[in-house]
This record gives sequence, structure tokens and C-alpha cells, in this order.
Amino acid sequence: MDADSVAKAFVEHYYSTFDNNRHALFSLYQDNSMLTFEGDKIQGAQAITTKLTSLPFQHCHHAISTVDSQPSGVNSGMLVFVSGTLQLAGEQNALKFSQMFHLIPTQQGSYYVLNDIFRLNYA
Amino acid sequence: MDADSVAKAFVEHYYSTFDNNRHALFSLYQDNSMLTFEGDKIQGAQAITTKLTSLPFQHCHHAISTVDSQPSGVNSGMLVFVSGTLQLAGEQNALKFSQMFHLIPTQQGSYYVLNDIFRLNYA
Repeated sequence: MDADSVAKAFVEHYYSTFDNNRHALFSLYQDNSMLTFEGDKIQGAQAITTKLTSLPFQHCHHAISTVDSQPSGVNSGMLVFVSGTLQLAGEQNALKFSQMFHLIPTQQGSYYVLNDIFRLNYA
Repeated sequence: MDADSVAKAFVEHYYSTFDNNRHALFSLYQDNSMLTFEGDKIQGAQAITTKLTSLPFQHCHHAISTVDSQPSGVNSGMLVFVSGTLQLAGEQNALKFSQMFHLIPTQQGSYYVLNDIFRLNYA
């Protein structure tokens, strides 16, 4: 697969996991991973998973609008930039969001998330 | 300055240059720089500057809403994630945008843009 296809596959896997089995996101982060979520800074797979699983909504659905990717210049890493919408259960209007990931290859031939920055795009 | 302050100062400088002296953005990119602008991929300072100066609007004003930053793990690089609005001359409504930069230190003690991804956030 080319880099854009890898990025798209990762993003689909990430949000499918987020929406259906959120605690399993743990496996996509490592101890040096960083998340900035609406300005909150969190480090490490365990703390990041705790943050994501304790958000004040249980059921949600991410829809992806755009996925852009570029090589990051570090260890065959890849920058992935996503825009989309987040539909929360019981809410009428979906929320627009943007998110970026810095993916680093693992020795198992997969990727983990080194950097993750998430922002809602308020209207 | 701490990393967040450096990121904020860079972003203010970048958009001030974009809005007031767009061709001077050339100095912020190098030959290995990459720009993905609304899905268009451009590489190299010259081609990127040509793209940015030939966008179909001359007068614009960027207003920054949020700036988030994290170390990228490469050569003391920094990832910077911006959300904001872009007001074009003669248009009633500002456009919402998100943009990410991967900044790499230069030998002159400044930073250049290795990665740049820009997307409008359509309502």
C-alpha cells in the first residue's frame, strides 16, 4: 500500500475502535505517546486510554471527511491529518473536529501513535 | 521561551507574513518541505511559495483560535496544530480552517517548516 492508503486504513481502524471498543485504543499508543485533547496534555498509553474512555459520552460515531498524510522525516514516520464529524448519542447535530496523528512504525510491521492532537471546530 | 510559546510566536509570524507579505513565506520553507493544501501536494520552498502566492485571493486575514504543540521526536522538531478563521476581502463570512506544521530547528537558531497540511473546515 502507498502511504496515503496506509494513513486511510489507520484512520478507519482508529475511529472504528474508538466508536466500538474504545478501551482497545490502548494498543495503538506507547509510553512515550502524547495526546493533546482540547488543550489537555496527557502522556503515556495508560493515561491516554483513561482520558479517552472517561470522556463524558459513551456512544459516538466518527465520520471521516478528509485524510491527508506526509512522511514526517523521523524513523519512517507518517503525519496524518483528519477532518470529520463526531455524532454523539442523543445529540441532534454532529460536531466537527480536526485531528492529527504522528505514526511511527513498530517492529511488528504496524504503527503506533507518537503524537495525537484533537480539536473540535466550533461553529 | 517554552515550546508552547515558541509555537505561538511562530504561528503569529507565519500568518502575519501570509496576510501582509505573502511571498516572504519562501524563507520559512526549504527544498525538502512539503505542503498539502486542500489535498494538493507540493514540495520545495519555491513551488510552495508559488502555490501560496497564486491562490485566488489577494487580501486576507487569518485569526487564530487555538494553537497546540508537541515535540515530534525528530531533531528537536515541533508539531504545531492550529485552528482559526480566514477572512477574504469582499466575503461576508470568514472560513474556518485547520492547519498543522512540523517545525525543524535551523542552524541559525530559528525554525523552518518541513511539513504543512492545510484544510478548510466546511460547515
